[in-house]
Amino acid sequence: MDLIYILDLTGTFVFAISGIRMAARNDMDIFGASVIGFVTAIGGGTVRDLLLDNHPITWMSDMSYPIVILAALPFTYLAGKKLDNFTNTLFIFDTIGIALFTMTGMEKALSFGFNPFIAGTMGMISAVVGGVIRDILCREIPLIFRKEIYATACLTGAVVFYLGIYSGLPENLNYLLTTAVIIIIRTVAIRKNLSLPKMKA
Amino acid sequence: MDLIYILDLTGTFVFAISGIRMAARNDMDIFGASVIGFVTAIGGGTVRDLLLDNHPITWMSDMSYPIVILAALPFTYLAGKKLDNFTNTLFIFDTIGIALFTMTGMEKALSFGFNPFIAGTMGMISAVVGGVIRDILCREIPLIFRKEIYATACLTGAVVFYLGIYSGLPENLNYLLTTAVIIIIRTVAIRKNLSLPKMKA
Amino acid sequence: MDLIYILDLTGTFVFAISGIRMAARNDMDIFGASVIGFVTAIGGGTVRDLLLDNHPITWMSDMSYPIVILAALPFTYLAGKKLDNFTNTLFIFDTIGIALFTMTGMEKALSFGFNPFIAGTMGMISAVVGGVIRDILCREIPLIFRKEIYATACLTGAVVFYLGIYSGLPENLNYLLTTAVIIIIRTVAIRKNLSLPKMKA
Repeated sequence: MDLIYILDLTGTFVFAISGIRMAARNDMDIFGASVIGFVTAIGGGTVRDLLLDNHPITWMSDMSYPIVILAALPFTYLAGKKLDNFTNTLFIFDTIGIALFTMTGMEKALSFGFNPFIAGTMGMISAVVGGVIRDILCREIPLIFRKEIYATACLTGAVVFYLGIYSGLPENLNYLLTTAVIIIIRTVAIRKNLSLPKMKA
Repeated sequence: MDLIYILDLTGTFVFAISGIRMAARNDMDIFGASVIGFVTAIGGGTVRDLLLDNHPITWMSDMSYPIVILAALPFTYLAGKKLDNFTNTLFIFDTIGIALFTMTGMEKALSFGFNPFIAGTMGMISAVVGGVIRDILCREIPLIFRKEIYATACLTGAVVFYLGIYSGLPENLNYLLTTAVIIIIRTVAIRKNLSLPKMKA
Repeated sequence: MDLIYILDLTGTFVFAISGIRMAARNDMDIFGASVIGFVTAIGGGTVRDLLLDNHPITWMSDMSYPIVILAALPFTYLAGKKLDNFTNTLFIFDTIGIALFTMTGMEKALSFGFNPFIAGTMGMISAVVGGVIRDILCREIPLIFRKEIYATACLTGAVVFYLGIYSGLPENLNYLLTTAVIIIIRTVAIRKNLSLPKMKA
């Protein structure tokens, strides 16, 4: 459980970095960048908590989240373009973040008594809504609607995670397996340039 | 009541189709299209439920809504351009959807003890917010702010519906009358190309 | 307290005007303009109330807010371009609105038992989210991310206000002091064309 918490904070940190970097590319000042970083990191979990009526909202009752997000600002500022050399590392942590947000979102929804479909939806909302808000605020076409593998990986991960719960897999093993599946899907999809068929107009 | 429920699901189905078709025109893949369809269909009711503190959110506790929305994806995919031949039919169902969302939203707000003005606002939120989110996600200028008749029809319908309640009209008759008024306003406005005056800059 | 309530309504009125005027510049009709005015005026407080689980939402239980907002429509319509001559007056009231929304948002969050950081965040959300939604609906780049002084003023005001509470300053004096600080920061920043450093891309 401690490991999961640390990874969850790591995912939050990496999500905040992705928001701050997009803000920087959009020529924002440091304040605007921190706001975008904040919203990217907590947006998904906040919408999930509101939908589940889960109060207080996670980041409002555990200061570790705001602290980690605030720390991402000087980190990104100082690291600057050097972060470009760590694209693969950021990608791995980003994917771990997605995986963890999907799984913790699902667990929370299941603990509220919702069925697996709703739980999977809540998991995906936790994982992707922050990025969607970031893209809207920066006036970019939401990445999730262009690179669907992001969401497809979540969806597959959600199915694997639920099957793990259903079949009584130990929680830690289930976390590990689901994360591995999500990482593999995203990596293979990017390497092989896979994508879902377009919807016909 | 059964008829109203069926019509409500029909409205949900048609709203989902409108989201999926706009996503297709924006070159999205089938996953992005389902998300847009989902958000278009449940966005208004979700915001209404959050504002009213009505938990669990309607579509999270009645799987008929997600199922109807998911069914809209293969339907739209298979129907494809043929749907263009049914523009009038889709328009009628879309208008019935608007009318029903307005009325059920109002009834819910009134049952929570809110006054008619707030109830009317909740009705309109139920009817239009899904489309506004759809337009923002697809980066189009929200239709409601360009074709105000959509919203004006809701507003007039809300007034008629409340007068019906106030004057003790039987519920089914009130539903029928309000829906008729909304259909007539939208149809006449489109035929005659009516619109409200512009706001001066 | 009565004075604060009146100023709060004044801030609401001025926020509504700013929404209506932006809608007019975007060629919307009077209905779209009222919706934008409404959302601009109540958006921040609504998100704050949802995050705090503060039900009923303020404007849903006190009709003074909707009435003041509705009154802004004919006012803006009739005043028209003449309002351009009152830019400074509008600016002062807008700044008072920001200051008051920041402070009342903070007080509400503190009364719910949240810490000063969360309270400050709620104060800023109350003050800026309405404008952000307005800008998104009008497809403009959110002003707050371009003219950061707006948000920096809020942030500084939040710090001053909390220090005032912490040091036992009488409430009215604290309101006055915080508002003065916010007005001074915004005025000086605009006069001297000050801004925060850009985030490096």
